[in-house]
Amino acid sequence: MKKFINGISDIETELLEGLAAAYPQKLRKVGNQKIIVRAQLNHDKVSLLSGGGSGHEPAHAGYVGYGMLDGAVAGNIFASPPPLAVFKGITEVATEKGVLCIVKNYTGDVMSFEMAVDMAHGHGVKADMVVVDDDIAVQDVAIGRRGVAGTILVHKIAGAAAETGADLDMVKAIAQRTIENLRTIGVAISPCTVPAIGHPGFEIPEKFMEIGIGIHGEPGIKREPITSADGIARKMLDKILSHIEYAGNDVVVLVNGMGATPMMELLIINKFVNAYLYRQGVKIHDTLIGNFMTSIDMAGFSITLLKLDDSLRAFYDASADTFALKK
Amino acid sequence: MKKFINGISDIETELLEGLAAAYPQKLRKVGNQKIIVRAQLNHDKVSLLSGGGSGHEPAHAGYVGYGMLDGAVAGNIFASPPPLAVFKGITEVATEKGVLCIVKNYTGDVMSFEMAVDMAHGHGVKADMVVVDDDIAVQDVAIGRRGVAGTILVHKIAGAAAETGADLDMVKAIAQRTIENLRTIGVAISPCTVPAIGHPGFEIPEKFMEIGIGIHGEPGIKREPITSADGIARKMLDKILSHIEYAGNDVVVLVNGMGATPMMELLIINKFVNAYLYRQGVKIHDTLIGNFMTSIDMAGFSITLLKLDDSLRAFYDASADTFALKK
Repeated sequence: MKKFINGISDIETELLEGLAAAYPQKLRKVGNQKIIVRAQLNHDKVSLLSGGGSGHEPAHAGYVGYGMLDGAVAGNIFASPPPLAVFKGITEVATEKGVLCIVKNYTGDVMSFEMAVDMAHGHGVKADMVVVDDDIAVQDVAIGRRGVAGTILVHKIAGAAAETGADLDMVKAIAQRTIENLRTIGVAISPCTVPAIGHPGFEIPEKFMEIGIGIHGEPGIKREPITSADGIARKMLDKILSHIEYAGNDVVVLVNGMGATPMMELLIINKFVNAYLYRQGVKIHDTLIGNFMTSIDMAGFSITLLKLDDSLRAFYDASADTFALKK
Repeated sequence: MKKFINGISDIETELLEGLAAAYPQKLRKVGNQKIIVRAQLNHDKVSLLSGGGSGHEPAHAGYVGYGMLDGAVAGNIFASPPPLAVFKGITEVATEKGVLCIVKNYTGDVMSFEMAVDMAHGHGVKADMVVVDDDIAVQDVAIGRRGVAGTILVHKIAGAAAETGADLDMVKAIAQRTIENLRTIGVAISPCTVPAIGHPGFEIPEKFMEIGIGIHGEPGIKREPITSADGIARKMLDKILSHIEYAGNDVVVLVNGMGATPMMELLIINKFVNAYLYRQGVKIHDTLIGNFMTSIDMAGFSITLLKLDDSLRAFYDASADTFALKK
């Protein structure tokens, strides 16, 4: 394993310190916790808190800032933060208007955030949560679809809604409507290496790819021979388009790199995505391309589509000022 | 070679089309040329043109937009654009106030831009150029230091100066002062694969890194065993700090990923960079972290320091709205 790191057990803490150091006026790391919050809390609005395992940088701490999150709680790499850490995060950002947690749909994450929200209630803190389940690749019988890269669009839109001073129920309803209109699918050609393990946790054979892979390398729909970028993107888009009626609607497109995918390839993929969606009658309102929700050093990408209505469009277009997304 | 591409000979064109497709209101690809320009040219200011070989995405086309470049001319992967293509780029962005070309210091790039500027003069177009030579790793006897990631800070500052309506001599002088205060050094742990070749053009042995590597994989200062992220960053910073007196000055820090380096690692590196510079008496004015000037899929990073004075600081702080850098 070749990586630019120091001690393996320090990775999660050091990366958050490196982020906070880059924005000392805007971000604050909470004591010895793996929590990043805005340096100045706005007490007149609902606070948004997200989080989950580390290894998805810049998610989620990179989205703390004006117009998006107020705080992010990180677990160890690919591990849910414990309930007490999430509770600490809630108390750090709590306001009179309440805290909305935005949680990716994994058993551990949902459990930690649910317990933390319960604890918050016990301490008289208003708190609620939404669960993002945008990954159409596979559906676990027990828990449903996974939450992946589309989550950052929920941060964006719910964050803009919160900045208007809307109440907790309203911000939650807007987040929920975003989630309902959000679908993602991923693909990878090479796996990621979790530092504590030191070698890839699985292999993808030469000349093969895995469509539907999760952001922790969870198995996808199938392994098949790599084809052209256009062929791969078309297959992924067809799956997404069969889930929701995107044609005729304003849509945000997110082409997300998983950590080791060159920008060159993401741009080539977007050429097809853009042309194909246009032919399908989808109106592209905006396109985001880059490493927004990664899987350490996996070579792969995901495509996310979000259908907008008038209010979601206005919140999407509102300004945001964070490390990883500015508008 | 596993890559998300279509035909190998289409890579450069397709990636520019994918970029322009993401920003149809802001960017325009010029005919069948590998040139990206602003969709609306501002005729009341000096235009800035940059360019060079492809493979460094998002550079340079990703920096076309308000507050930075007016156009970017791409060559094939790691190959200089031919003089006629650069000349075409100059004519596309030419205004009464003139065109300033920002060129990385490589023999081919400098030759192409010099010839194109001469051609422009022959056609009555006011044009001039500056050459960026921020890479302290090695010094070629004939041509001097190479131009690498610091180039985007020249785009930023000269771009802001141009937006004020300053004349060509003034914008050139500001670009030149930026270049004089700019130093970069890189390191890599794994090489890049040029698609047309299909395998890495060189190898870095297991457990070794190469300090001083160039953005095309040119040999660096030396190969040595990989140490801690902190140890590597310290060695790099010591080299930069020995070149220019940064202590006591306001400085912009750029921690640049070379394409396949996870954000996790760049953040860990920044933790040390930030703390070490602070201990050296450097005042960090701003920090940029991400993939700004890549080498396809090389795993490596560079550190750039730029010393600011009052006017450079104001231009750096001015707003910018491009694909790859927003302020």
